[in-house]
Amino acid sequence: MKQRVYDANMLLPKYDLVTFTWGNVSEIDREKGLFVIKPSGVDYDQLRPEDMVVVDLKGNVVEGDLNPSSDTPTHMYLYNAFPAIGGVVHTHSPWAVSFAQAGLDLPAFGTTHADTFYGNVPAASALTEKEVTSAYELNTGVVIAREFAKRGLDPMAVPAVLVRQHGPFTWGKDAHDAVHNAKVLEVVAEMDYHSLQLNPHANLQLPQYLLDKHYYRKHGANAYYGQGN
Amino acid sequence: MKQRVYDANMLLPKYDLVTFTWGNVSEIDREKGLFVIKPSGVDYDQLRPEDMVVVDLKGNVVEGDLNPSSDTPTHMYLYNAFPAIGGVVHTHSPWAVSFAQAGLDLPAFGTTHADTFYGNVPAASALTEKEVTSAYELNTGVVIAREFAKRGLDPMAVPAVLVRQHGPFTWGKDAHDAVHNAKVLEVVAEMDYHSLQLNPHANLQLPQYLLDKHYYRKHGANAYYGQGN
Amino acid sequence: MKQRVYDANMLLPKYDLVTFTWGNVSEIDREKGLFVIKPSGVDYDQLRPEDMVVVDLKGNVVEGDLNPSSDTPTHMYLYNAFPAIGGVVHTHSPWAVSFAQAGLDLPAFGTTHADTFYGNVPAASALTEKEVTSAYELNTGVVIAREFAKRGLDPMAVPAVLVRQHGPFTWGKDAHDAVHNAKVLEVVAEMDYHSLQLNPHANLQLPQYLLDKHYYRKHGANAYYGQGN
Amino acid sequence: MKQRVYDANMLLPKYDLVTFTWGNVSEIDREKGLFVIKPSGVDYDQLRPEDMVVVDLKGNVVEGDLNPSSDTPTHMYLYNAFPAIGGVVHTHSPWAVSFAQAGLDLPAFGTTHADTFYGNVPAASALTEKEVTSAYELNTGVVIAREFAKRGLDPMAVPAVLVRQHGPFTWGKDAHDAVHNAKVLEVVAEMDYHSLQLNPHANLQLPQYLLDKHYYRKHGANAYYGQGN
Repeated sequence: MKQRVYDANMLLPKYDLVTFTWGNVSEIDREKGLFVIKPSGVDYDQLRPEDMVVVDLKGNVVEGDLNPSSDTPTHMYLYNAFPAIGGVVHTHSPWAVSFAQAGLDLPAFGTTHADTFYGNVPAASALTEKEVTSAYELNTGVVIAREFAKRGLDPMAVPAVLVRQHGPFTWGKDAHDAVHNAKVLEVVAEMDYHSLQLNPHANLQLPQYLLDKHYYRKHGANAYYGQGN
Repeated sequence: MKQRVYDANMLLPKYDLVTFTWGNVSEIDREKGLFVIKPSGVDYDQLRPEDMVVVDLKGNVVEGDLNPSSDTPTHMYLYNAFPAIGGVVHTHSPWAVSFAQAGLDLPAFGTTHADTFYGNVPAASALTEKEVTSAYELNTGVVIAREFAKRGLDPMAVPAVLVRQHGPFTWGKDAHDAVHNAKVLEVVAEMDYHSLQLNPHANLQLPQYLLDKHYYRKHGANAYYGQGN
Repeated sequence: MKQRVYDANMLLPKYDLVTFTWGNVSEIDREKGLFVIKPSGVDYDQLRPEDMVVVDLKGNVVEGDLNPSSDTPTHMYLYNAFPAIGGVVHTHSPWAVSFAQAGLDLPAFGTTHADTFYGNVPAASALTEKEVTSAYELNTGVVIAREFAKRGLDPMAVPAVLVRQHGPFTWGKDAHDAVHNAKVLEVVAEMDYHSLQLNPHANLQLPQYLLDKHYYRKHGANAYYGQGN
Repeated sequence: MKQRVYDANMLLPKYDLVTFTWGNVSEIDREKGLFVIKPSGVDYDQLRPEDMVVVDLKGNVVEGDLNPSSDTPTHMYLYNAFPAIGGVVHTHSPWAVSFAQAGLDLPAFGTTHADTFYGNVPAASALTEKEVTSAYELNTGVVIAREFAKRGLDPMAVPAVLVRQHGPFTWGKDAHDAVHNAKVLEVVAEMDYHSLQLNPHANLQLPQYLLDKHYYRKHGANAYYGQGN
């Protein structure tokens, strides 16, 4: 699994989603209750599979010589709060960060969005001062889960969030899927930004039936996109 | 022809027109009434010429072990509706999608546009709920052909459309030509976006005589651009 | 000289200034009264030094098996109108085209601009219908020279123009220098676009003394930038 | 140290921070009171470690056959004014230049910013005509130091400035660190530009407690990001 998580981490620079060390990917083994995550602040071109750190669901390092990502408590909280997810990604990809800094949901404007995200990707409420000053990284997970609960969102149907003033977290059935969703998020953010600038006063929101059509064309029992594997 | 269609598909990542598997190219043999299209959801770096799928003009798979692109009914409809075209391309290239999501025609602002597109590239009307919920991909072709009929456009003079809330389809005399047009569309969309932001209140539309000059410099009996072959 | 012009042409794709074949570079031998230019519509990866075409100052092809660039009459007119220039470049580089399509001068906002262009790069007046319908490419040169005369500009101090609804032409002491100026123009257009969007109501124009300082730091008898060669 | 400064200079093209020769990096040996800087106007692909020029803190060339960067007096002034800094970088990176030309501070909108810059990156006041016409490059240093004094900023906490109508200077504990800060500045400028366009009327400024949290997570005695080395 270290190799898998290493490979998923190395997709971040390949997909142009990170500058320097600003990203991390983890994947969980639900049976063992352990997840594997990138170490903190290590350059991608010096990262090795054996550098990956193994952490339990209380945040204790179980295996590894290096410090795990400083965002490890966020990953841990998400694995506990969202039992269906198998991988988590955090990046500072610039288009998604632009929406996070602007405090705006990433709106569902097109089928590119609907193929992956079943509705707007929420900009979570900002952390309060108290949530920032103590257990900050854990509380980042708290505000994400709270936003999904408040809006009644299924985290597997909308596998991404914009943490206000910070940037995106995405997840998926495993680490590779979570990275895929991080890339889709970035591409859609770029498209939506330009659509908003082109036509700021129109209602560009996708109608529900087109959202349904594209999402369920790729997901669930009646999906018919791809080769069925 | 599988090799030709494979080669044309591989131009999409080369020209930066696709993310993941979000694009497809087909080409038709008009004598046989068959077209060759990319399989659905296969990564470009794993695609092989022999994976291409052969489909007839009713949409039946005639040859090939893989599912054809989920957009195959759109390609089929276009080949039936536009008898002069020989190749069709669909992508989610970001600048063209931005206009499609904004619901705006790609305006003819400059000679870069006029060299390839004889007038605005239309944003088609949105599909109705009924058109989305049944035979969606076929109806995508229907709305394209309806838009061209309504506007009285010659599909060979304006070989592109923006499907509302979705993205571009382009076509041409063969698959390679259709890919060329997909790239021109993307480049022009980028230019037009910035011109619109720079000067939103001016009329930037190209005068008819300059549209004529550039289009007919490259197309038709009196063309004098290139080496005449 | 064919080799030199070939090399200068090949810098256009290297500097990301062209899509497909949308660019051309020429250089003149003033003693012989002949210039060498790229052939029309040939892909950059198939271009060879021996394909370059030799043309005299009346526009007659003197040597070469291929048709010269369709913009040859524009190059010819500029060599006649501006006796000090030694090379000419035309591209459809997207940022410069955006200003040309918007019909706006590229303003002198910063030292990046002033290091190369001594003042705004003019957007020339549009060609009239008559100028478009006959001798179009020659008239493109006419409107450029007319704009410089009207504004009293020295073409060696402002070695670039934006042809309305079309794109940039640049020039310089030789072909390589003209390509350099084409790249600077594109970079400055990108910067200026963003500055204009950030602060649309302020006067961002560079004061004359800073324009003087930077321009003359690099040009003329008192230049002290570089290694003095 | 020439090798170190050469290596740091070569990071500028690697990080997409320079066009042509528009950038320079220096590093100081505080014990010897000498700094090493790139020569003026030499192409990056022809630059060699032995070309680096050694300069003292009065601006005299101590070693080297080439002219030092024309910005050498700015570097010298900064080393004298800010005793804690060990390296200086100047570029014309396009996003940072866009803010400099617009005359706007780069605002602290997100954690990407706060991880490196403890507050807004100031746009310095413009040089006066007198400051431009004599000892221009030295006066560029003067206005930077004056801006930091006026605002009461610690140059090690905010290791960057936008010189009005010009572009960014960054610094750090050594040349490599200064280049790192130049890249962060460029990435943050891109993000902030888009956030401002998305939500121009909201107050997007980071609250002090989040600025504190992220800055001190990476800097100072209680830092816990990375591997502690």
